[in-house]
Amino acid sequence: MRMRKKSWAEPFLAEHDEVVIASPESLKGNWKSRLNTNVLHVEIGSGKGDYFTQMASLYPECGWVGVEKNINVAAAAAKKAVESGNSNQLLIAMDAEKISEWFEDGEIDVIHLNFSDPWPKSGYKKRRLSHRRFIDVYERLLNEKGQIVMKTDNRKLFEFSLLEIAQCPFVLSEFSVDFRAEEHSEDVMTEYERKFVELNQPIYRAVWTKLEK
Amino acid sequence: MRMRKKSWAEPFLAEHDEVVIASPESLKGNWKSRLNTNVLHVEIGSGKGDYFTQMASLYPECGWVGVEKNINVAAAAAKKAVESGNSNQLLIAMDAEKISEWFEDGEIDVIHLNFSDPWPKSGYKKRRLSHRRFIDVYERLLNEKGQIVMKTDNRKLFEFSLLEIAQCPFVLSEFSVDFRAEEHSEDVMTEYERKFVELNQPIYRAVWTKLEK
Repeated sequence: MRMRKKSWAEPFLAEHDEVVIASPESLKGNWKSRLNTNVLHVEIGSGKGDYFTQMASLYPECGWVGVEKNINVAAAAAKKAVESGNSNQLLIAMDAEKISEWFEDGEIDVIHLNFSDPWPKSGYKKRRLSHRRFIDVYERLLNEKGQIVMKTDNRKLFEFSLLEIAQCPFVLSEFSVDFRAEEHSEDVMTEYERKFVELNQPIYRAVWTKLEK
Repeated sequence: MRMRKKSWAEPFLAEHDEVVIASPESLKGNWKSRLNTNVLHVEIGSGKGDYFTQMASLYPECGWVGVEKNINVAAAAAKKAVESGNSNQLLIAMDAEKISEWFEDGEIDVIHLNFSDPWPKSGYKKRRLSHRRFIDVYERLLNEKGQIVMKTDNRKLFEFSLLEIAQCPFVLSEFSVDFRAEEHSEDVMTEYERKFVELNQPIYRAVWTKLEK
């Protein structure tokens, strides 16, 4: 008989409502005041939380919200956020499919897609976080000059994303096919990213800015 | 005393008017009828002519015009074109700065920038063939659904070009950060390109299609 692993994840998430937002729709339109900031960053697919926690430490004047649907992974992110002591980061442990229920149109300044799941099989491409059906939502939720920032080691995901977002009302504003070839102290490097860099594998990065209407 | 190397280039170019067009402005608006084709490809900076000669052989139904300003290099290209026996390729041994004097607006179907000089110093970026001042000219000379095809080993030139053309009325329609990772029999590989591939260096490639008005 296979033993069921006892999960600490759900109780941990429930206990830490100073970081984990159980009803994100209740903050719709009020994230900036809750985080006491003028600049709201949202990382979709924040995994174990290294990126948004380190970025929240680096940019304490900004608010950082992580979204992670895998409960066990989200609990690890919540733990990091709690331990960091940062008061400028929050976590939503839910599926980003519902993101437009949580944020008001124009409420977000920057959306981060950091080493997102590439969903390599063509049949699953709708699940990629840079699929047009997501980009259309991001476009609504971002403010006038809002940006999408993507960083990935995955060539195919990067190629897909460039072509996909070229069809949307955004303009490419930063672009690198080997981001870590130069020093970029403005962007934190997680342990996950460092592994690729140490193997001399390129990190791809692009920033798109919402087209003015 | 340094001996001046006797050049065979100019006499060779002058003698081969079946390939080398001395007065390209005289063909303005008539390149397709001269080349007996419906599809006109122009390679700017064709170097020693390997790419446009091999592409002319691969696509005999298309017309191929090479532009190369260095006279000695252009002579090597002319020699290859003559030896190929292709009747669908022509060479202009002049500076592409004057390209709008040679082609009618909307006359060209595809413009190729193949391993262009990267002009790495910022002070010379206006000389890059993907600088906006050239892109504006290409936009006029290309037909309604005309395309720019760029291939390069040079990361910085590629990054510059993606950002530059994002500002112009073109849409990114093909994009690869490692073009030779897959088989691409539709595109010839010159000896020059093969050297990078054998060193496992990525070939970057992008295609932009003119935006419909």
